[in-house]
Amino acid sequence: MAQPKAVILVSGGLDSATLLAMAQAQGYACHTLAFDYGQRHRAELVAAEHISRKHGAVEHKVVTLDLRSIGGSALTDQAIDVPVERGEGIPVTYVPARNTVFLSIALGWAEVLSAHDIFIGVNAVDYSGYPDCRPAFISAFQALANVATKAASEGQSLNIRTPLISLTKADIIREGIKLGVDYAMTVSCYQADAEGHACGRCDSCYLRREGFLTAGVPDPTRYAK
Amino acid sequence: MAQPKAVILVSGGLDSATLLAMAQAQGYACHTLAFDYGQRHRAELVAAEHISRKHGAVEHKVVTLDLRSIGGSALTDQAIDVPVERGEGIPVTYVPARNTVFLSIALGWAEVLSAHDIFIGVNAVDYSGYPDCRPAFISAFQALANVATKAASEGQSLNIRTPLISLTKADIIREGIKLGVDYAMTVSCYQADAEGHACGRCDSCYLRREGFLTAGVPDPTRYAK
Repeated sequence: MAQPKAVILVSGGLDSATLLAMAQAQGYACHTLAFDYGQRHRAELVAAEHISRKHGAVEHKVVTLDLRSIGGSALTDQAIDVPVERGEGIPVTYVPARNTVFLSIALGWAEVLSAHDIFIGVNAVDYSGYPDCRPAFISAFQALANVATKAASEGQSLNIRTPLISLTKADIIREGIKLGVDYAMTVSCYQADAEGHACGRCDSCYLRREGFLTAGVPDPTRYAK
Repeated sequence: MAQPKAVILVSGGLDSATLLAMAQAQGYACHTLAFDYGQRHRAELVAAEHISRKHGAVEHKVVTLDLRSIGGSALTDQAIDVPVERGEGIPVTYVPARNTVFLSIALGWAEVLSAHDIFIGVNAVDYSGYPDCRPAFISAFQALANVATKAASEGQSLNIRTPLISLTKADIIREGIKLGVDYAMTVSCYQADAEGHACGRCDSCYLRREGFLTAGVPDPTRYAK
């Protein structure tokens, strides 16, 4: 029997690298999808491609989408600084409706591929509080997916898979190590430099470093000098 | 009191021109949004800008998004011909997940603008059968919008407005004429030429022509010779 196809959203970061390794281990033919959306941390796009190749993705696609034209986030508007301390509430690194947009495009591609599964590495434990990482958001998108497409109207189901959603960052790292993920290849920092060196100070760097500490795994992150 | 802001999805076609005129008449400050998504009928982008200006949009934005990289539709893949006869089922002009993607980006922009309303000109009467034009799709997107954003998590509601959804094409045209829409400015054809001349044979041309006939309004469409 042919392997079932899945679309895997990859960002080049720690979570989605683990996600891809998990989907691969579950026997899916993995079609990885990254977005060139105008993010300031473009080193992640290079990382996403390398990780996809390393983990045997059937195909890696980068969709161009100019979210800078909308702005409203430190990640898409150079005039808004990335915070280097953890604050209260949802931080300015939140990109309006980003996961909704990413899942929508993944939904379109899944339909073209006749894939019935989309994997997204959202996490609602060690995260920045983004609303579009929470179970209620995923449930609502799942419900939407099942009325949004021609495939759905023909009775084909589409599953949004979120195997990381309830794991701690340390759990994710332990799982990835078991599956052979090389975290030195991943870039999590919101303002990584062109070579992928991390700032070590943003929220994403904070969560990542704490994860390695708690997991008792040496942190392979390349920090900026 | 300041006018409430709304994001209006505009395509350059008959429906969305009417939609914009309706939103304007209802007192909204209209921020129009069009997509350069790789569609073959690019004359509609020029039309969308002209219509937005004519109807007093506060701002007109074009977001670039490469849906050709996904393909799967006669509108985004030059290798698939636009049918020139009405057939059974959902036609190949269906673009996978298009309205989901468009509404997602509109949702992001609405959040940046602090707008609480998004207008989309979907119609489920005289239409091509696309699943993402139906009330069930709109309801599901509405539910998603209310858990997807930072604004939603702070208690702000977001309404998806679909004033055309139950109207016939003739009703839409009559409404637009009352509101001063100049349909000669609109381009509906799936394969309009660069100057906006319509083929007169595709499904969109068929629905439009029947609408003018039924409404008893002279058809101002510029057809290709």
